Amino acid sequence: MIIDCHGHYTTAPAAHTAWREAQQAAFRAGRATPAYPDIPEDDLRASVEGSQLRLMRERGIDLTVFSPRASAMGHHFGDEAVSRAWTRACNDLIARVVQLYPEHFIGVGQLPQSPGAPIAGSIAELRRCVEDLGFVGVNLNPDPSGGHWTAPPLTDRGWYPLYEVMVELDVPAMVHVSAVTNPNFHATGSHYLNADTTAFMQLLRADLFRDFPDLRFVIPHGGGAVPYHWGRFRGLTDMLGRPPLAEAVMRNVFFDTCVYHQPGIDLLFGVVDVDNILFGSEMVGAVRGIDPQTGHHFDDTRRYVDTLGLSADDRRKVYEANARRVYPRLDAALLRRQAVTT
Amino acid sequence: MIIDCHGHYTTAPAAHTAWREAQQAAFRAGRATPAYPDIPEDDLRASVEGSQLRLMRERGIDLTVFSPRASAMGHHFGDEAVSRAWTRACNDLIARVVQLYPEHFIGVGQLPQSPGAPIAGSIAELRRCVEDLGFVGVNLNPDPSGGHWTAPPLTDRGWYPLYEVMVELDVPAMVHVSAVTNPNFHATGSHYLNADTTAFMQLLRADLFRDFPDLRFVIPHGGGAVPYHWGRFRGLTDMLGRPPLAEAVMRNVFFDTCVYHQPGIDLLFGVVDVDNILFGSEMVGAVRGIDPQTGHHFDDTRRYVDTLGLSADDRRKVYEANARRVYPRLDAALLRRQAVTT
Repeated sequence: MIIDCHGHYTTAPAAHTAWREAQQAAFRAGRATPAYPDIPEDDLRASVEGSQLRLMRERGIDLTVFSPRASAMGHHFGDEAVSRAWTRACNDLIARVVQLYPEHFIGVGQLPQSPGAPIAGSIAELRRCVEDLGFVGVNLNPDPSGGHWTAPPLTDRGWYPLYEVMVELDVPAMVHVSAVTNPNFHATGSHYLNADTTAFMQLLRADLFRDFPDLRFVIPHGGGAVPYHWGRFRGLTDMLGRPPLAEAVMRNVFFDTCVYHQPGIDLLFGVVDVDNILFGSEMVGAVRGIDPQTGHHFDDTRRYVDTLGLSADDRRKVYEANARRVYPRLDAALLRRQAVTT
Repeated sequence: MIIDCHGHYTTAPAAHTAWREAQQAAFRAGRATPAYPDIPEDDLRASVEGSQLRLMRERGIDLTVFSPRASAMGHHFGDEAVSRAWTRACNDLIARVVQLYPEHFIGVGQLPQSPGAPIAGSIAELRRCVEDLGFVGVNLNPDPSGGHWTAPPLTDRGWYPLYEVMVELDVPAMVHVSAVTNPNFHATGSHYLNADTTAFMQLLRADLFRDFPDLRFVIPHGGGAVPYHWGRFRGLTDMLGRPPLAEAVMRNVFFDTCVYHQPGIDLLFGVVDVDNILFGSEMVGAVRGIDPQTGHHFDDTRRYVDTLGLSADDRRKVYEANARRVYPRLDAALLRRQAVTT
């Protein structure tokens, strides 16, 4: 089967998005937030059947690891209560979609990471996502400030209580920033890629995985700038007196295949071990157009991976086995499903 | 001939670096800065003969476009007067090295870009660098705050007076950040690469080159994450309704070859037009070790470029002609030298 580890609910119903706007307006005006709307099941079906589900069918993707729209997480906006309410609404909506299409989607949650807010709120939502909603992972924003980078690095001990629960629940985090308010950055054009590179370098420099040998991060967008500069990172590891990447980082860090042209995918597989690469497309996301050079969607990453001519074993790793290993709760869900079917 | 467009004076004499420390200590203590030391010519010779010059000879590099150490620019430190004094000291030192070895080095300056300081100071130093010191370009820091990204984007009109003078003097800028005080970033491991990607996306989104058709930027470190994600940037150009990259950006933007492994260089040349690539190594810089996989220095980028098997014409572009085109004052200096020789 083919699992896409990186899909966001970018086509959520208008009522959901309108409520977020109302919530923001209410916060700005100091008014009470209006009640979250009733969103009929038909609207949920309509929101994915013509987009994600259709494209998954067309591209032969069986299952998408599905999370709230990353650019809309907007942790920088409002306060902890605003972020908590919005986060719960987003995660609940993902849970409803997963319930409607359990064959095709499995949930990953966002966290209510207001800048400066205690980590306890994120831990509570992580538990709710996994224990109540059946999610298999979370998205973790290394810069809840929205492009001002005011939070401590991911390797700071302030994050440790969250990591303890991630390890307890056996769920990984995808490191994923959100929208920016800093005019220097464009969310999908620079901020996302910068955050990927930044996170990798933080992990290279610190002993986080010595403290949490079972903690796992997926760094999306093909690892930002990292594979292209793999020699630089190998060289810096040596210059900084750090243990080799294979030992100290790559047992715990995985890259997806959200790189939107063949030469990029070729490079990724050329330098990064196949055990560390999870198929992903972030389809209906940052880049939705058709590449005039190929006549296919930029984000149809399966084409690039298929072109590599991987061995059957490597292909299975990238498309399925690595995701099942990195997201054990996804594996368990698939095993349960298999048991019911057979 | 082979021109390296990206070299910093990372081995400046101890007295120079000690003066910077004394200057910083004096600023912190509210005392007057001590006088800049006399640095004997022999110390300057010793500082490059065993390092840059030796490596240039070993690697067959004829000429290095030489600028002050990037990580030491430290624009975030102190105030405008501190930055101006340090910048002048650094640029003057480059001018002395160039005077000692005019065959091997040609100068590029740093600018006194204190956060929030008027652009006039940078313009004055740009003029001094070019008109008095004979430099052929400058390094422009898009984030003088040192990792807090508080300056306006490079496309903001606040930078325009500087660009007017760059165009008047016909000198390009290398977009190059400096050290960081934000603990999220590592200077050479993430901040440099992030800045490269950030600058490219700023240029993609705005009409800066419509306003300044002759303005030229070199984006170092192989363009940050850009070539690896070339499909993403082509797709974003389209999604944002921007003109094609070839027209709107790549007439004015150039990448160097500071990518420290063969697959990265292969990708760079696979996706970026050879007219937009300038040979560079940033040798004795971020990554000084030997790659155990090759037995050669990570930053010996000539090996990677030579391995490409470029045509004679393309080879000449990357090693010489593009640099002479992007830095016309370098070209003029070489023509003058030729005229003297013949």
